[in-house]
Amino acid sequence: MLFIIGLGLGDERDITLRGLEAVKSCEKVYMESYTSLLSFGLDSHGLSNLEKLYGKTITLADREMVEEKAHHILEEARHSHVAFLVVGDPFGATTHTDLVVRAKKMGIHVQSVHNASVMNAIGICGLQLYRYGETVSIPFFTDSWRPDSFYEKIHSNRTMGLHTLCLLDIRVKEPTLESLARLGLVWFGLVYSTSSSWFYSLLMHFFFRGRKTYEPPRYMTINTAIEQLLEVVQERQQPAYTEDTQCVGFARLGSDDQMIIAGTMKQLQMVDFGAPLHCLVITGNTHPLEEEMLEFYRCRT
Amino acid sequence: MLFIIGLGLGDERDITLRGLEAVKSCEKVYMESYTSLLSFGLDSHGLSNLEKLYGKTITLADREMVEEKAHHILEEARHSHVAFLVVGDPFGATTHTDLVVRAKKMGIHVQSVHNASVMNAIGICGLQLYRYGETVSIPFFTDSWRPDSFYEKIHSNRTMGLHTLCLLDIRVKEPTLESLARLGLVWFGLVYSTSSSWFYSLLMHFFFRGRKTYEPPRYMTINTAIEQLLEVVQERQQPAYTEDTQCVGFARLGSDDQMIIAGTMKQLQMVDFGAPLHCLVITGNTHPLEEEMLEFYRCRT
Repeated sequence: MLFIIGLGLGDERDITLRGLEAVKSCEKVYMESYTSLLSFGLDSHGLSNLEKLYGKTITLADREMVEEKAHHILEEARHSHVAFLVVGDPFGATTHTDLVVRAKKMGIHVQSVHNASVMNAIGICGLQLYRYGETVSIPFFTDSWRPDSFYEKIHSNRTMGLHTLCLLDIRVKEPTLESLARLGLVWFGLVYSTSSSWFYSLLMHFFFRGRKTYEPPRYMTINTAIEQLLEVVQERQQPAYTEDTQCVGFARLGSDDQMIIAGTMKQLQMVDFGAPLHCLVITGNTHPLEEEMLEFYRCRT
Repeated sequence: MLFIIGLGLGDERDITLRGLEAVKSCEKVYMESYTSLLSFGLDSHGLSNLEKLYGKTITLADREMVEEKAHHILEEARHSHVAFLVVGDPFGATTHTDLVVRAKKMGIHVQSVHNASVMNAIGICGLQLYRYGETVSIPFFTDSWRPDSFYEKIHSNRTMGLHTLCLLDIRVKEPTLESLARLGLVWFGLVYSTSSSWFYSLLMHFFFRGRKTYEPPRYMTINTAIEQLLEVVQERQQPAYTEDTQCVGFARLGSDDQMIIAGTMKQLQMVDFGAPLHCLVITGNTHPLEEEMLEFYRCRT
């Protein structure tokens, strides 16, 4: 049996009783560490809070591990109870759907335990959830890669008067360029070596394995997101939004020290929202009750 | 202090540890009984499960009570800890936003405890949450009232390849027509009586108070929803959907006996989904991973 258990958004107290009961029934507990993070997901102190609560050792599973070792995890789940803990709700990210599909194909029984995710917890600002259009993701721009496909979606949403949730980029355990270059060598070896290809690739794998290095983790701030959003409309006629468009910025949503501020893009760009995770909502047309609620979060600068 | 606490979707075990801790700290506990229901929200047996878990007496608050007595609830929250329990997440329904706005205006500290709601729990079927457009509500049609404003929204969503969540009507504690007629008399009295208006209205109020009667509760089934959806497109050129459009039906989402079936409207119309609550998703364009996941829920008739 594989349990996919949502942990909610704040800390170890955000698991449900149903989820806690499930974790306690498991022989092996994995926790995803690639799509998001929590106060307890980052440092060993936080993790030990979880371990203390569950009375279990937790194995942190990064993207590489889940993609490479999914079969191993699922083999365990075939014979025993295995928990896979996910920050937020289990089905916020595609990767978990993939794990469930693989499990079901192997005939393993899967049980999901729901929890709050950013997709519904943003309701706290007063903008009604049923008045949101398509959700967009804002990726980190680089010098050579500045994809702006989010723009058209925001444009559509705003044309229909709908709010837009912008999920901001998270880069955790990204291989360094140097690492990628080395990996390129490995693949070059894999593709071009002939009869001895497996031996060669194995050799390359072990040779480079220990040296794989990663970029430090990066979490996009609301400030960077707005900078990129405004860059994208700079040369557009009748842009879908401007620096005067009303938005709501959320930091550490669901935590004790969450921060929610409503204001124009220009105003929010000046706010220090502190530690990650951040997300941003671009408002559409607002109803009086929505306005009344936003008033409590209004930027006072 | 007013705590607005989400209970999640299944039963008493779906509250979070944070939520449970908050309820236990409260002197008074209310539970909304108007926007949705739970196995434990309907009968005294279920409610007593909650009461046993919390070690508290729970006062059920229907829409009338919340709208008429909000001030009383909030006055209590000014001087003590009051919990207001909500099925799903606190901000799924406008009414709770309204309560929070009133509390904040009175200077009462409000704390929200998030949980899963239907808006994110539908992710379990494999259709990615960020690929949903605007959510629609399907109201019960009557002989004279057949509003179809949901059609244009579904049309927009499908034009953009997005999925649509359809929330199905719930009629709980609706006054009977007879009751409404009596109420009309009271208001007639209120408006047209002159100097003695207050005395007159008070008299009418007490006279009719005990006799107010309600329709039995009604929860729209997926079958009725599809019937109405198909009626609406009957005479349209190039309809946004047909009886062959792929949908996913959900019943009792998040409960142990939840039912999730994917199929065409025509197929789902033949399925008996059992007890409420039901909701329906009309798919947009699907990705291969979404298709793979839906396959597990596919209707076999």
